[in-house]
Amino acid sequence: MDNLFATPEFQMSLLLFVAIGGYLVASRINQSAVIGLILVGLFVGPSVLGLITYTDFVSGLAHLGAVILLFVIGFEFNMKDIIQPRNFAIALVGVIVPWLGGWYLAVLFGFDSASAIFVGTACTATSIAITANVLKELGKLQTDAAKAIIGAAVIDDVLALLALAISTDIVGGSFSYLGVAIVTAKAIGFIVIAAAFGLLVVSRFLVRLDTTPFVKKYPEFIFLFAMMLAFFYAMCAEAVGLSAIVGAFIAGVSFKDVELHQSHSLKEGAEYLQIIFASIFFVSLGIIADLHAVTPEIFLFLVALTIVAILTKVIGCGIPAKMGGLCTKDALIVGFGMAPRGEVAMIIALIGLERGIIGQGIYVAIVMMSLLTTIITPIVYRNWFYRGEYCKYEGGGTSMPDSSQEKVA
Amino acid sequence: MDNLFATPEFQMSLLLFVAIGGYLVASRINQSAVIGLILVGLFVGPSVLGLITYTDFVSGLAHLGAVILLFVIGFEFNMKDIIQPRNFAIALVGVIVPWLGGWYLAVLFGFDSASAIFVGTACTATSIAITANVLKELGKLQTDAAKAIIGAAVIDDVLALLALAISTDIVGGSFSYLGVAIVTAKAIGFIVIAAAFGLLVVSRFLVRLDTTPFVKKYPEFIFLFAMMLAFFYAMCAEAVGLSAIVGAFIAGVSFKDVELHQSHSLKEGAEYLQIIFASIFFVSLGIIADLHAVTPEIFLFLVALTIVAILTKVIGCGIPAKMGGLCTKDALIVGFGMAPRGEVAMIIALIGLERGIIGQGIYVAIVMMSLLTTIITPIVYRNWFYRGEYCKYEGGGTSMPDSSQEKVA
Repeated sequence: MDNLFATPEFQMSLLLFVAIGGYLVASRINQSAVIGLILVGLFVGPSVLGLITYTDFVSGLAHLGAVILLFVIGFEFNMKDIIQPRNFAIALVGVIVPWLGGWYLAVLFGFDSASAIFVGTACTATSIAITANVLKELGKLQTDAAKAIIGAAVIDDVLALLALAISTDIVGGSFSYLGVAIVTAKAIGFIVIAAAFGLLVVSRFLVRLDTTPFVKKYPEFIFLFAMMLAFFYAMCAEAVGLSAIVGAFIAGVSFKDVELHQSHSLKEGAEYLQIIFASIFFVSLGIIADLHAVTPEIFLFLVALTIVAILTKVIGCGIPAKMGGLCTKDALIVGFGMAPRGEVAMIIALIGLERGIIGQGIYVAIVMMSLLTTIITPIVYRNWFYRGEYCKYEGGGTSMPDSSQEKVA
Repeated sequence: MDNLFATPEFQMSLLLFVAIGGYLVASRINQSAVIGLILVGLFVGPSVLGLITYTDFVSGLAHLGAVILLFVIGFEFNMKDIIQPRNFAIALVGVIVPWLGGWYLAVLFGFDSASAIFVGTACTATSIAITANVLKELGKLQTDAAKAIIGAAVIDDVLALLALAISTDIVGGSFSYLGVAIVTAKAIGFIVIAAAFGLLVVSRFLVRLDTTPFVKKYPEFIFLFAMMLAFFYAMCAEAVGLSAIVGAFIAGVSFKDVELHQSHSLKEGAEYLQIIFASIFFVSLGIIADLHAVTPEIFLFLVALTIVAILTKVIGCGIPAKMGGLCTKDALIVGFGMAPRGEVAMIIALIGLERGIIGQGIYVAIVMMSLLTTIITPIVYRNWFYRGEYCKYEGGGTSMPDSSQEKVA
């Protein structure tokens, strides 16, 4: 307490003050708040002003922010919308092609193989938060292209995080096919069990609990319980080798349909937490990046990485989307829609940096690539695809894939 | 990340899990959630199981919880209800008498003078949170006794925290009348300026901001701004020597009447944050207390301290209340209503412990005293005062003090 600048009150008010600046910047450059928050984080962090350093407390709050953010996003999704064959195809090819592209580029630039594997992994991610937000802003959330993007982005996230687990093993020298099989089994097993337990047991339990006199007396209990479960799932996901945010996302999906009468709304409450802590998370992404690490070589690398990151998603997701029955324009919309790397790539980069696998230079290149891919998608959407009228499906206005239409015909 | 138990996700899920246990205990013993949370904190902390230790991260979250709690409580109050002459009399005598009682008792038990001053200071506090909650549970929030309690409790809090600032100076050897005058001037100056700025500038600014296209685009902005201000006020309060929570309380009072249309509700959002972080705060109060420090001597001291704490508030607040025009029963209701020390005494004790002024023994005695005074009030209220009918005022059924009634007559 004797040092005012070390108090949690000071750090919190400074972080939120910076977040407010982020919103003002976002508004000025007419971008999503995420971009403003990261830019202001870069400005107050060691890159420019050096006002805030990435202390354990700031890091802890940022972790909470990432968990809460993905928990809230989970509420928007429905297991049935996600599990579609076309989405699996888009996600799978859309993970393999960017991985190879990122890895090959890093090798070309002469980075060591551990770094190259991490660059490839960071290229696989798709930010569901940012993509969904852009589509929402454009009022296109209910189109088939949007549903394909969102479903594939969720599967892509899981695949990317599986890729992260595998990459970490490879880099750690503990790679084996059996090891990968075990990681995969553990990850899929966790996802299936956690989703089933959440949807079938916990959500029903909470709905029943909501009618008890206990909850009438303590209406805040169910919200507390749900947040506990979000962090518990996050912790379990980490324990099986996935990223904590996948666990939080599954917790959110399981609570999607929980309707409460006596209690506070889970989604609403989580959104309020998100306003505060996700802002801190995005600001901290800027704080941890030190632009002093951008040498001319890293600058060239980050430009090349951004181009590769966009092209590999457009190709890797666009082709399966086209083959799955979308028209060329819609396939391109899907491809560009999957391009924003957003917070997922940043989290992967952060893990790489914290474990000492990648250096500040590559970390900053990945963060800037995430930022640039995220800025480019709304620009392309607004000026290119959604200027004229929305295209019709080649197959005749349905969202079914060509093959099944042929069968019907 | 390599040590799962050190991750923020693990600590958060464990703290919230413990909080859930606290609610179950509270329900079982039919008490307010606060008591259950502290008891469970005692159980999982070093006193019994040793599952959770008071790390910097836990301490940081607990600080945030205290700030958010007092911010939310601030929303319930109105500057005009607080600033009443009778409330000042109740608060002032109700601070002096318990201070003397606590100080004298500690001297009698042979503690050093720095500790005795801190014990006296801890006795001055009144928990507005707990008192208001008990009255709310009993449906008596709109009675004159309740208004007197709540108004006096707020002033009492400020006086108690002023007493804390002065005590800290005395203990630190930097006491002088000029010093006290400066502390007082700074504290009152901060309160007046912060309240005026909050009520006249910030709240009007937010209401106007709410109608702008900027907030239409970013509806979460005003909530973020309000929380930033809560932490900023908390930090400023600390900077002038008050406790952070007084600043947060004033921020809450200033936003009481801000009505927003486009944005998220400030009070609602802060309440959601409170559910999570105030729970962690109460749990942490139990965690930091180590019951191993309760020697037979400390046990005797804590029993005596609890009795002194209750009697001095009943006398110190009851007599001015009676003189201010309330009937004997209402005066006793006010006296017992001011007795719960709750989180304010615990925060004072925590500051004393963190600065090395008091030892674990006295710390635990104060925490247990806060707990016991808090448990006793609802019991006394339920079984004694609010069993029969509610009494009439001796002066004739109004809440005006005798003197002013005589003038009217």
